[in-house]
Amino acid sequence: MRPSGRAADALRSFSIETGFSRHAEGSALIRMGQTEVLCTASVEGRVPAFMRGKGQGWITAEYGMLPRATHKRGEREAARGKQSARSLEIQRLIGRSLRAGVDRAAMGEIGITVDCDVLNADGGTRCAAITGGWVAMAIALHRLVEGRAIARLPLRGQVAAVSCGLLGAGADTRAVLDLDYAEDSAAAADGNFVLTDAGAIVEIQASAEGEPFAREAFDALLTLARGGIGELCAAQADAVRRATGGAA
Amino acid sequence: MRPSGRAADALRSFSIETGFSRHAEGSALIRMGQTEVLCTASVEGRVPAFMRGKGQGWITAEYGMLPRATHKRGEREAARGKQSARSLEIQRLIGRSLRAGVDRAAMGEIGITVDCDVLNADGGTRCAAITGGWVAMAIALHRLVEGRAIARLPLRGQVAAVSCGLLGAGADTRAVLDLDYAEDSAAAADGNFVLTDAGAIVEIQASAEGEPFAREAFDALLTLARGGIGELCAAQADAVRRATGGAA
Amino acid sequence: MRPSGRAADALRSFSIETGFSRHAEGSALIRMGQTEVLCTASVEGRVPAFMRGKGQGWITAEYGMLPRATHKRGEREAARGKQSARSLEIQRLIGRSLRAGVDRAAMGEIGITVDCDVLNADGGTRCAAITGGWVAMAIALHRLVEGRAIARLPLRGQVAAVSCGLLGAGADTRAVLDLDYAEDSAAAADGNFVLTDAGAIVEIQASAEGEPFAREAFDALLTLARGGIGELCAAQADAVRRATGGAA
Amino acid sequence: MRPSGRAADALRSFSIETGFSRHAEGSALIRMGQTEVLCTASVEGRVPAFMRGKGQGWITAEYGMLPRATHKRGEREAARGKQSARSLEIQRLIGRSLRAGVDRAAMGEIGITVDCDVLNADGGTRCAAITGGWVAMAIALHRLVEGRAIARLPLRGQVAAVSCGLLGAGADTRAVLDLDYAEDSAAAADGNFVLTDAGAIVEIQASAEGEPFAREAFDALLTLARGGIGELCAAQADAVRRATGGAA
Amino acid sequence: MRPSGRAADALRSFSIETGFSRHAEGSALIRMGQTEVLCTASVEGRVPAFMRGKGQGWITAEYGMLPRATHKRGEREAARGKQSARSLEIQRLIGRSLRAGVDRAAMGEIGITVDCDVLNADGGTRCAAITGGWVAMAIALHRLVEGRAIARLPLRGQVAAVSCGLLGAGADTRAVLDLDYAEDSAAAADGNFVLTDAGAIVEIQASAEGEPFAREAFDALLTLARGGIGELCAAQADAVRRATGGAA
Amino acid sequence: MRPSGRAADALRSFSIETGFSRHAEGSALIRMGQTEVLCTASVEGRVPAFMRGKGQGWITAEYGMLPRATHKRGEREAARGKQSARSLEIQRLIGRSLRAGVDRAAMGEIGITVDCDVLNADGGTRCAAITGGWVAMAIALHRLVEGRAIARLPLRGQVAAVSCGLLGAGADTRAVLDLDYAEDSAAAADGNFVLTDAGAIVEIQASAEGEPFAREAFDALLTLARGGIGELCAAQADAVRRATGGAA
Repeated sequence: MRPSGRAADALRSFSIETGFSRHAEGSALIRMGQTEVLCTASVEGRVPAFMRGKGQGWITAEYGMLPRATHKRGEREAARGKQSARSLEIQRLIGRSLRAGVDRAAMGEIGITVDCDVLNADGGTRCAAITGGWVAMAIALHRLVEGRAIARLPLRGQVAAVSCGLLGAGADTRAVLDLDYAEDSAAAADGNFVLTDAGAIVEIQASAEGEPFAREAFDALLTLARGGIGELCAAQADAVRRATGGAA
Repeated sequence: MRPSGRAADALRSFSIETGFSRHAEGSALIRMGQTEVLCTASVEGRVPAFMRGKGQGWITAEYGMLPRATHKRGEREAARGKQSARSLEIQRLIGRSLRAGVDRAAMGEIGITVDCDVLNADGGTRCAAITGGWVAMAIALHRLVEGRAIARLPLRGQVAAVSCGLLGAGADTRAVLDLDYAEDSAAAADGNFVLTDAGAIVEIQASAEGEPFAREAFDALLTLARGGIGELCAAQADAVRRATGGAA
Repeated sequence: MRPSGRAADALRSFSIETGFSRHAEGSALIRMGQTEVLCTASVEGRVPAFMRGKGQGWITAEYGMLPRATHKRGEREAARGKQSARSLEIQRLIGRSLRAGVDRAAMGEIGITVDCDVLNADGGTRCAAITGGWVAMAIALHRLVEGRAIARLPLRGQVAAVSCGLLGAGADTRAVLDLDYAEDSAAAADGNFVLTDAGAIVEIQASAEGEPFAREAFDALLTLARGGIGELCAAQADAVRRATGGAA
Repeated sequence: MRPSGRAADALRSFSIETGFSRHAEGSALIRMGQTEVLCTASVEGRVPAFMRGKGQGWITAEYGMLPRATHKRGEREAARGKQSARSLEIQRLIGRSLRAGVDRAAMGEIGITVDCDVLNADGGTRCAAITGGWVAMAIALHRLVEGRAIARLPLRGQVAAVSCGLLGAGADTRAVLDLDYAEDSAAAADGNFVLTDAGAIVEIQASAEGEPFAREAFDALLTLARGGIGELCAAQADAVRRATGGAA
Repeated sequence: MRPSGRAADALRSFSIETGFSRHAEGSALIRMGQTEVLCTASVEGRVPAFMRGKGQGWITAEYGMLPRATHKRGEREAARGKQSARSLEIQRLIGRSLRAGVDRAAMGEIGITVDCDVLNADGGTRCAAITGGWVAMAIALHRLVEGRAIARLPLRGQVAAVSCGLLGAGADTRAVLDLDYAEDSAAAADGNFVLTDAGAIVEIQASAEGEPFAREAFDALLTLARGGIGELCAAQADAVRRATGGAA
Repeated sequence: MRPSGRAADALRSFSIETGFSRHAEGSALIRMGQTEVLCTASVEGRVPAFMRGKGQGWITAEYGMLPRATHKRGEREAARGKQSARSLEIQRLIGRSLRAGVDRAAMGEIGITVDCDVLNADGGTRCAAITGGWVAMAIALHRLVEGRAIARLPLRGQVAAVSCGLLGAGADTRAVLDLDYAEDSAAAADGNFVLTDAGAIVEIQASAEGEPFAREAFDALLTLARGGIGELCAAQADAVRRATGGAA
């Protein structure tokens, strides 16, 4: 039995609420168990300087945590004067993942910034940010099509993410899906898997927390992830459909 | 008629929800119309360095806005590398206001940090932060009494805040209560009034946006504020009662 | 009796010396008792980016303290790597106050930066900075008119500032004008009042240091301030007249 | 044929030179083709604050590039005022990887900082840093054993890293080992594989540069990596043996 | 004839006024022509961390310019977020120069910070800061002896500074003493000479602005400097005597 | 006898290797005894903003040390968030020195950045950086002439640097050339001398570490320096000749 009592291949109960943000062109408040991340997509008239003149769009992601999203209050990054290395690493991952789901040439030189702010943290915040961020981005892209700023929806499929990890030790090691904070703290290894709705790989980051682990164990994590991503993609599609009155 | 259609002395519809934050010792999600601020109170084992050895408690406040809480996305302060002068000024105001409501000698050397993060902004965020922050702080203080960390509730009364402003010009100038963003942008002058439930003054900040204004106009703003504060204090007391099963 | 031995409604002895700065378009060294603030107005060819293309001028203020302007040496803000929140808050106040005294449309797209640097501090530095800053700015504007950079003097009246506070406690509480450092440290409440020579309100910031205070006490502070501002405005006018050979 | 003309499973010619740094307790200058990284291990009397009192050692890694290590000069991070998000991400990876190869309980509260500075960059710098950093660290640990600061060599095996990528498109896609800069720029996907000499997984980071890719392609990358790591580990062992007169 | 009309070996008219700063343990407002620098010496209970436990004192210097001390307003260093490289270089020079004049072992572990802030700049600010800074420091040391914090005056002689430069070109090149801003801008080479009252060398910094220059020209600069330093040291001694009622 | 056992006028054994950097337009790895500095010259299409439109070139220098170039590891400047005052001062010296050797009008509006990074430090790093930096710059300028970006080689002579110092005390004081770290730590005074191959002065910085010193001692240092510079300039010329197949 895993600490959460869930089956090895069970996601936490989850939901994706759209429209929480009053002003953003797209927004999604995603809840994965006790983890809550508010994702907003902001359309900007132009792309960053390094992309200008290429006729392509760009997606930038930023990630933050409210100071008391965690068990113990964390220092406010704005007060500390910089984003932590962890935040920077996570927002780079989110940005790469979301860009992989978009046909940037079809966007024209439009920039979208996806902000992912963790309101409550209980493990898996970066994966929730990717899954919710994709919904916010997709809604904003739908709006751009409706407003005729772009000719057709430049989505190449859905992108979602989930973590998996190895619990226990030795012969008792089991691979489990969607770690909460307590499970993550106890895991011998974990990985974040960003996949498309078709099961293709966008990004994998897996690391041993203690002992290095075998290839077979890694394979089990990837297999579990693929199952969880299917469920998440269904919820994404449903959320976008509800928000836009159309299909993702 | 004011832009919002409200009577001159009418607050926006508002609510104070407690418990939104899973981990904080006290939390309040306050909604004033379309403005939403999440306030959390975090109890820390000790006071800041400059207060040590004085046998008194301390309340620190921090204020931030999610980048897309506003009509146009604002730069993330953590990415920019510092809090804006506006944020710093607001969090100093919140801190002073909350400290005024507490008997710090009765707290002992306990520190509380109240984080006020704006999820959606439509005017009046600093006032909402004070009103909601007081609720979060009061709940955390109740918890400290329950846990016998302090002997009795060190509250000296309730502290709440509201803005008022002057709309129109010349003979048509009217003082109105609780400005939303559109009204704030149109106001000839506005003020933020931090008062106790007994109507005493904690802090007043009033400034002319255009022409300097007369003392009589200022008096009208203060009178309106006092009325609004009464309603807000009733809601504060109710929220704390619900969250703690007792009286504020 | 107040600590300084002054009557409740007596300003400290004060003076405004112009021309101390060799290079600035306008300058005023203001002394309020032991407090000395050097104010310089620098005319810049253009307005800040957010004001361009609007046909209006802009006044920016910056405030600093020499490290040993105070009883105990303070860390040099430039060495510390940022201005303190207090400095930022004060310079925003000075800027708003000076802008309120100017007809910005009549200035054209000229920018003026008013630097207020405290050489010696004994309370009331922000008020002295506003009073002296207005003189430096007025002289610079006169020069612009003389040099035909602008057609007419774009001043809408004089702006000056003074602090008032409540000394004593309970029935012995008295409102006094123009607090020095020792009085400020002892005050139960204080306020900074920025008024025009006609007595109109530009900005008010008042706060309880300890117990919240009554509206009547606030009214007494405002009445005192109005009297003091009259004396300061007379000295301002005189200083500008001497520096420019004309009337303010 | 791949751009470099190498066989799909061929590493670049490489070497590991020890002792380049005059002062460091361990050092390795690793060359992977045209990529050169100077790795130094500095023994510090104590562990970082968050690890104190746990009786365990700690390995910290820092990563930098000389400004002209690259084709086009990059801004000096020290002049820019912060390390780039890329540098921070890489040094976190190096640190985790090296810690995975050490029995930290057997180290006692000794800290080692491994600095990896890129002198010349031609792709694969982070992998070279891990492979070379392990050698520098191992030499420093040997010295600690020789100096009787620790009782036995606290190494749990060797840790090395290599990148692999997918070149070409569609049916012509081939997995290749150890990408140089030109290959990396052309790759449809690439991964960094940190493995032990026994082939166990320490960390995997793989991402699609363009189209998401299939699980089978990922498997091919991992298989290639395992082969390359074997060769690198042999060179590591040899370098440490030469530097210490013993076995790794 | 030099631009200022002065003889080649003539200092500008100068003065050293003590006591300008109300709070500092020692202060000197030095005027060298139109250049004015306010120097304050602040006694601190302890030395910097790197000097603790050595039984010696320490002198730290800090240097700044008011934004409008110059012809064109300079950005406020505190607003810019860091001291300029020029300021840092100058304050290091001032600190080394003043420490050279003190018997630090005789001070005990007392720290003195000498702040040199330029109120008006017309060339030679760093030299004026050293000359005036020595006066402020000497007065503060006298006070420490009077207050019996140290047993005897730990001064090893006077330290003063002056600049010299080469004006003209080719056969018309002349060495001149104490450059003002216009002369400094026109000089082919200049040097800052920090000497003791006995003519010994504390520090020399000389550099060619254009063409490298001959050793003979350098010798002429040093000879001029020695003469000017004699006059400055007499004024220093006089200023300290007046301020302390004793001899320097 | 000096600590290094060298004759008073003997340089350390030294070498200048060109081409170490794969990508830079010019590079030199200079070794002065155990001190090693990698100098690269990067040609940039344009000059810094403050030089635009003047038809002249510009040389900028930057200086850094690898964290473990020194006996004790130093904090990484990029991690610390700023360059040290020492680094800034050194890179300003290098830049001034190299610019003095160039006819900037003959360069056109081309910018060259010379990066000097210390790989191993044993005293004299700033002088080595100037001597090596000149070689890197000269090679880059040769390349620009070869590539016809500029019409003729804009060099006005060679520029090199060496340190000299006073060892011993009293009557036993001796002037010695080219201090290593141990000698530098023991020196009563030292100076850095930047001279041309013709012996003209580019820059001199000399300071007393302890007691101020006599003019005669300074003269001895300068005489020694001139001798050492001759040897260094010969090696510079040789290195440039080898790298370019021509004469410096």
